[in-house]
Amino acid sequence: MSAASTTFPLQERDIPTHWVNLVPDLPEPPLPPLHPGTLEPAGPDDLAAIFPPAIIAQEVSGEPDVELPEQVREAYKLWRPTPLFRARRLERALDTPAHIYVKYEGVSPAGSHKPNSAVAQAYENAQAGVRKLTTETGAGQWGSSLAFACSLFGLECEVWMVGSSYDQKPYRRSMMQTWGASVHRSPSQLTDAGRAQAAHASGSLGIAISEAVEVAARDPAANYSLGSVLNHVCLHQTVIGQEAIAQLELAGEAPDVVVGCVGGGSNFAGLAFPFIRRVLRDGARTRFLAAEPAACPTLTRGAYRYDFGDTVGLTPLMPMYTLGHDFVPPPVHSGGLRYHGDSPLVSALVRAGIVEARAFRQNDAFAAALQFARTEGIVPGPEPAHAIRATVEEALAAREAGEPRVILLGLSGHGHFDLSAYDAYLAGELEDPEFSEADMDAALARLPQAPAIG
Amino acid sequence: MSAASTTFPLQERDIPTHWVNLVPDLPEPPLPPLHPGTLEPAGPDDLAAIFPPAIIAQEVSGEPDVELPEQVREAYKLWRPTPLFRARRLERALDTPAHIYVKYEGVSPAGSHKPNSAVAQAYENAQAGVRKLTTETGAGQWGSSLAFACSLFGLECEVWMVGSSYDQKPYRRSMMQTWGASVHRSPSQLTDAGRAQAAHASGSLGIAISEAVEVAARDPAANYSLGSVLNHVCLHQTVIGQEAIAQLELAGEAPDVVVGCVGGGSNFAGLAFPFIRRVLRDGARTRFLAAEPAACPTLTRGAYRYDFGDTVGLTPLMPMYTLGHDFVPPPVHSGGLRYHGDSPLVSALVRAGIVEARAFRQNDAFAAALQFARTEGIVPGPEPAHAIRATVEEALAAREAGEPRVILLGLSGHGHFDLSAYDAYLAGELEDPEFSEADMDAALARLPQAPAIG
Repeated sequence: MSAASTTFPLQERDIPTHWVNLVPDLPEPPLPPLHPGTLEPAGPDDLAAIFPPAIIAQEVSGEPDVELPEQVREAYKLWRPTPLFRARRLERALDTPAHIYVKYEGVSPAGSHKPNSAVAQAYENAQAGVRKLTTETGAGQWGSSLAFACSLFGLECEVWMVGSSYDQKPYRRSMMQTWGASVHRSPSQLTDAGRAQAAHASGSLGIAISEAVEVAARDPAANYSLGSVLNHVCLHQTVIGQEAIAQLELAGEAPDVVVGCVGGGSNFAGLAFPFIRRVLRDGARTRFLAAEPAACPTLTRGAYRYDFGDTVGLTPLMPMYTLGHDFVPPPVHSGGLRYHGDSPLVSALVRAGIVEARAFRQNDAFAAALQFARTEGIVPGPEPAHAIRATVEEALAAREAGEPRVILLGLSGHGHFDLSAYDAYLAGELEDPEFSEADMDAALARLPQAPAIG
Repeated sequence: MSAASTTFPLQERDIPTHWVNLVPDLPEPPLPPLHPGTLEPAGPDDLAAIFPPAIIAQEVSGEPDVELPEQVREAYKLWRPTPLFRARRLERALDTPAHIYVKYEGVSPAGSHKPNSAVAQAYENAQAGVRKLTTETGAGQWGSSLAFACSLFGLECEVWMVGSSYDQKPYRRSMMQTWGASVHRSPSQLTDAGRAQAAHASGSLGIAISEAVEVAARDPAANYSLGSVLNHVCLHQTVIGQEAIAQLELAGEAPDVVVGCVGGGSNFAGLAFPFIRRVLRDGARTRFLAAEPAACPTLTRGAYRYDFGDTVGLTPLMPMYTLGHDFVPPPVHSGGLRYHGDSPLVSALVRAGIVEARAFRQNDAFAAALQFARTEGIVPGPEPAHAIRATVEEALAAREAGEPRVILLGLSGHGHFDLSAYDAYLAGELEDPEFSEADMDAALARLPQAPAIG
């Protein structure tokens, strides 16, 4: 066993002072979101009902580096810098010459990367005099993160949790309440949207978004907060990749491939964008691999079109890979990856060939997660399990090629609240649902009118 | 908000190279354990049926510093050094001049300090050619930690989990299985002890110990492993306090008081023993405060007597504070603190007046835990919640005195698997059971024959 260093700790002073905005470095300017009625580009005014000015400025910023407010940086110190370690035990188990580095975001209070944006959003809303944030949550990661962030900045937090998750994951609900949030089972009786959808008792992310947006829009002291997809959320997450660059420099290595899972895209963006900027500016030779679930293969099977960000059609039209805004992904345990679309920025990078995408079956992802847990100790969340599977494939390809390739794996969170899925996997009872091309085709046929792209 | 440093990160090279054995520094040599039949001091031979030679040597060592095997130190690198941070947000919430430093062991794969000893025990057993470790677990922390440790060193792991916990905490069971352990609901049909106790369907720690010991004793390739109480377990945990000393030096501070929770005593010993050695050697002025549950107040209300370490009377007689080996503590959520006795070393330090003990009610502990979660982010386990309550009292006393006292809090683990208890607390439905003096008196009347001590 090697006695060489396996972790590369940073100090608090190494927490980034700026977020990386990739927009000004892109080969082509990103397509604008469109107002669904006029099909004209949607501007800052279209967002002002639910977002504070500073967040809107971040959403549309053209600056390459966006300064991190000092109080956000102070809050980041509660868990950042996060660890980067070399997974030598996994390397040995795979008998690979590859060097596998893991950037681990599961040390945050909520257990994933989500607080990086939740803290930034809660801070800017508190600065703007907002008193309450509303949001939706599926599996509970985003709701937990926003509850935690609101507790730091003295904001009320009201979360609509998808009914089936509310029933199945009581401990994520307890965690939100521990941080002081109110949690409602969606559909609720508190909103028009909820009352109208009462028949859909198990709820959906789309209904929960509608409820949270409705409450934020009608209460002048309340705003809405979104946990992925949008530019400002991707921006906030770039502390991950910037720290990883510094830590890999301590290790004396540069990645041949950067691997992360993609649901709405903010985790992948946070890890990859700082590295992609180096590729675009300096011509560094790095591959970027986005891992998604075969049950919801947005980037590998979706259409590159303008579509709504939410299921019921409240948002501007976004240019992105989509399975259709009312496509309902089969129930897999990676709640964080069950999204019909993808971040417009990540979508554009896939379209441009800068980011590769690959889809993985749920059982294959859990097999890799189990191997990771038994070698490296950490029990991964089901979402990053897909990235672990991709990493294993890359490490085995390096063995085939006989090359000591450097792989950087983004491990976005732990699986402490997902052990029922491990239970099912260990019992051989984990479903491995198929993606339905017919359902996607039907959903794509219901896409809104909008200009063709790409 | 201060921009001063709040975390004090160490490098891998700072992981201690030796464990601190406090025995040679004690004012008086510790009393020996006794064979329950002969009442003669129990020697290494009495332990050889269930422990490997290296562990027995650690149990009875008179060396002040016991070298840490390199492979154990390598395994520690999976999560050590653990963080030490200053809890400035909690200080502000308490409006105290005290400086509160937190040493956090919840970053280990199993989520507590327990792997510090599990890894050391699994390694020594693997070195001795043992193929399987058996153990019991109540709440699941120790069983998870040993399952994890066995997965690192290629050992089988067989865990008897107290029946009521097995039913109520399925996710701790899943976690053990994820790391490859077999988990049996105790009482099981696999042992004489289990079959004899089948009528006690909800099980007990005592029955589970009996089952695990029985299987280890009858299988030459299997050994038994204990997660607290014994000298070697306390020894393994002293990496905690040694790191904390180095980290407080980075902070430029020395503690006025060191606070930890006590069940069997290994967590408290691990944090406090390295500091206590400095007091004993150099006359440093530091107080040591052991926090225990009012429902199981061993150190504050128990008798200092020879008693069995387990409920059914299989172990040597240990000199310790005890409520009686068949005293059944009321059901509180701090499963790790529901032990009738205490580490003989910790007991002797309380007897000598070097360590103070204080008991706290369950609801008071949860109130403090909630305040901690809402200021510092981390959701604490119910066990360290008692130490947080003690810390809050010390911080308020410092405010009364107008003194900037330095408090070091041992935060032994997170509460990700204990959120049902938070649920009950938030709903105002958390029981706050009373300790029964009558039950203790009856149990003390059933103590085995042994010399009086103290």
